[in-house]
Amino acid sequence: MFTLHPQLAQDCAVVGDYPICRVLLNKQFSQFPWLILVPKRTGLRDLTDMAEQDYLPVMEEVRAAHDTLRDLSGADKMNMAAIGNMVPQLHIHLIARFKDDACWPKPVWGNADPSPYDADALVKMVETVRETLDLSPVSE
Amino acid sequence: MFTLHPQLAQDCAVVGDYPICRVLLNKQFSQFPWLILVPKRTGLRDLTDMAEQDYLPVMEEVRAAHDTLRDLSGADKMNMAAIGNMVPQLHIHLIARFKDDACWPKPVWGNADPSPYDADALVKMVETVRETLDLSPVSE
Repeated sequence: MFTLHPQLAQDCAVVGDYPICRVLLNKQFSQFPWLILVPKRTGLRDLTDMAEQDYLPVMEEVRAAHDTLRDLSGADKMNMAAIGNMVPQLHIHLIARFKDDACWPKPVWGNADPSPYDADALVKMVETVRETLDLSPVSE
Repeated sequence: MFTLHPQLAQDCAVVGDYPICRVLLNKQFSQFPWLILVPKRTGLRDLTDMAEQDYLPVMEEVRAAHDTLRDLSGADKMNMAAIGNMVPQLHIHLIARFKDDACWPKPVWGNADPSPYDADALVKMVETVRETLDLSPVSE
């Protein structure tokens, strides 16, 4: 049974579900809207550990979330990555970057100081993303 | 007409062509085999700037190259990313990481000192990758 890795659960707010991926919002970095997609499958680490029938549908979910986040944020550039050297549960980063953000043009990992959403802003952002991505609510 | 960005041309050896992507080997980092896939299209920057009919086929090329590089290298973890904050031509990184490599578990960007292939090792690596990925030679 799928459960979210504790580190992802700690750092992120759950936004909602695509058919295959759970969509998270990184709570720690309000300066660049940052979604994380986690396929709701067990035992995945590398991107291609997904079953063949999941891989392309997940890539379609990635595309939809990517473009919606780009439109929503007005990003100058989108960054997409599956790294997972530290958190051993497959998760796909989608990050809206801006030419005036604090670590541009460096990648965010290891280069950005946290700037958490305040409570109201977090609730608003999660609702906005859930609605614009047209995600299902998470039932557990 | 497609031409490779000068920075990619400088840093990489051309390995060969998939139907859509040109496959490059990063010459500067022999410590972690590092491929870069560049769709042979003009005007692409973000991952989803690709035409709809290219996106999933490119993701299949990514999967094939990812898995072949993983097998070939014996990587402990694969890293995949489309960042492009500095080089404004869509390019997809596939990097074989090892738990004893010099910047594990950090991402490689900005954290790794170059360790270029010597000439013989580069020729051998390019040939090995071209053969195992079953790429077409590049004709220009």
